[in-house]
Amino acid sequence: MRKMQTLGKQSMVPEEPVYIQGWGSVVGKKEGEGPMGACFDEIEEDPVLGAENWEGAESRLQLLAARKAAERAGISTEEIRMIFAGDLLAQSIASSFGIGRLDRPVYGLFGACSTMGEALSLAALAVAAGAGEHVLALTSSHFATAEKEFRFPLEYGSQRPLSASWTVTGSGACVVGSDAGPVKITGITTGKITDYGLKDSQNMGACMAPATCQTISTHLRDFGRSPEDYDRIITGDLGYVGQQILLDLMEEEGFLMGKVHEDCGIRIFDRETQDTHAGGSGCGCSASLLAGWILPQLACGQWKRVLFVPTGALMSRVSFYEGNSVPGIAQAVVLETAQDAGKEEA
Amino acid sequence: MRKMQTLGKQSMVPEEPVYIQGWGSVVGKKEGEGPMGACFDEIEEDPVLGAENWEGAESRLQLLAARKAAERAGISTEEIRMIFAGDLLAQSIASSFGIGRLDRPVYGLFGACSTMGEALSLAALAVAAGAGEHVLALTSSHFATAEKEFRFPLEYGSQRPLSASWTVTGSGACVVGSDAGPVKITGITTGKITDYGLKDSQNMGACMAPATCQTISTHLRDFGRSPEDYDRIITGDLGYVGQQILLDLMEEEGFLMGKVHEDCGIRIFDRETQDTHAGGSGCGCSASLLAGWILPQLACGQWKRVLFVPTGALMSRVSFYEGNSVPGIAQAVVLETAQDAGKEEA
Repeated sequence: MRKMQTLGKQSMVPEEPVYIQGWGSVVGKKEGEGPMGACFDEIEEDPVLGAENWEGAESRLQLLAARKAAERAGISTEEIRMIFAGDLLAQSIASSFGIGRLDRPVYGLFGACSTMGEALSLAALAVAAGAGEHVLALTSSHFATAEKEFRFPLEYGSQRPLSASWTVTGSGACVVGSDAGPVKITGITTGKITDYGLKDSQNMGACMAPATCQTISTHLRDFGRSPEDYDRIITGDLGYVGQQILLDLMEEEGFLMGKVHEDCGIRIFDRETQDTHAGGSGCGCSASLLAGWILPQLACGQWKRVLFVPTGALMSRVSFYEGNSVPGIAQAVVLETAQDAGKEEA
Repeated sequence: MRKMQTLGKQSMVPEEPVYIQGWGSVVGKKEGEGPMGACFDEIEEDPVLGAENWEGAESRLQLLAARKAAERAGISTEEIRMIFAGDLLAQSIASSFGIGRLDRPVYGLFGACSTMGEALSLAALAVAAGAGEHVLALTSSHFATAEKEFRFPLEYGSQRPLSASWTVTGSGACVVGSDAGPVKITGITTGKITDYGLKDSQNMGACMAPATCQTISTHLRDFGRSPEDYDRIITGDLGYVGQQILLDLMEEEGFLMGKVHEDCGIRIFDRETQDTHAGGSGCGCSASLLAGWILPQLACGQWKRVLFVPTGALMSRVSFYEGNSVPGIAQAVVLETAQDAGKEEA
């Protein structure tokens, strides 16, 4: 009898808990050397992972994270009923050539760096509807594929403004299912495309902050909650610049959330020693920290309830060259410790 | 009590019917001059639709189709609970800048030219789960944006091999909901990424045919049906080359479906007079014919049951230049006349 109930303007709540049964995180060398290095399942020393090119390397990250998530969930990848996956690259080739090898039914996504929030939301929707016992949500990013896709050839050694972020090399995957697991998904707020007209692709934190504020403030109103009802509200990759804008915008909406806010982009690198400027970014930033940090903290009861809000900047080289703005989107998922599973959300 | 039931290996069935309440189709001048020209809601004479660039034109196609679908469903666009949308362009910019203006919650998709099948499947899943009363599924393509994205500058006037297809300028949108509408969605088969190692991006019909066979043959086995149980099995954009391969592959699987098979790519243009070689292609090909041709035929009872199977070729410029193959994917949706709505599918 699992189903979704709509709540407020943009939210939904599973009538019975949907669980995260397993997760996996795989990152590159630089991420492994950062302050969160100890939390990831695997750290790849070889930036190309033995593949023929950067895109192939990113595909391998996805495959490794998916297999780790299935292993931790205690299932074989053949037991996965469907996959929700996407990435930053044009036509999502990291996903197509990565998860294609798992030979499972697939729905491909594009949510820029909000993809892990979107994949987790749709996996929860599918499980709540009864469309699968085990559904895989995953995404990835790679520093070198993202530079090639959006910026300059690495060989140029281009200088980066301080507002720019550093794309994380990493992947995170979750197995979502109906049988009890360590963490439950108890709510979802679907994001709106929000455009304040900002055009600076080297300051994506600022571009994404308005959408993030729209999603989080609507979430809190839809659920009748305040920021303190969460142990943490963790955004994807706003970085230092975007974080300050988000906190200011949230204050204008009447919510003070400085005490509970964390940002994966801020946490994943050490700004002082790793030369990463505004922070980490990319689909793999929030996905790898979800699997490596957030879910384990919830599983052990260190946190009881977290709002996970991956954030995406909707742009391409073409939209940038044509002088378009960079709209943002943010997808929110409520994650709770499952030990004290109850009906309080239904 | 709407929910999904899994069926067989890759399929699902709503326990109560999910309806298509309204639809809209908008195409370009060439499509309007083709054999199906009379069936579309709007034919745009201006290839750039008054926008500043081709991408802006494609965004406008989406917006026009979305508004037409809402109008036909008898709702305002504000009543749309969420949107599932995507397109062919890198980072789905046609969708981001098109539907962003509707100010509704969004889940972005990437399924190449299978996107309408994916969007319709996920909209049905959301409605079956109870996550929305009205959910919009849409996609688009534009000849000029696709040439720019995947092939050569139009000004080169490059010759096209006879196996190449012509990208449709068009968009199709559907409002999917729980209240009765003229057509119901009674089944879904999720596609697998299928790769026979073909590398010719100018022969995408051949690249997509194996995935199409995988989806349709699995669908028929999951539902215990034969091709004759459908008035039509309508694929997306296999074209003349892909159609023959599909029919051959299906025969190897034990299914003769030549009598009921149609392909949107074959139907949308007149090969003799429109110089479109293997047929039409692009997300907008199957989407505009779904809204302009298939749904009206079902709504009036001319057909009772159709299997709609948009087909996608998963590639990018980068994957092509790196010598990768072109895997395919196909997403199948069972559409039935709603007048004789019963429980035979539940």
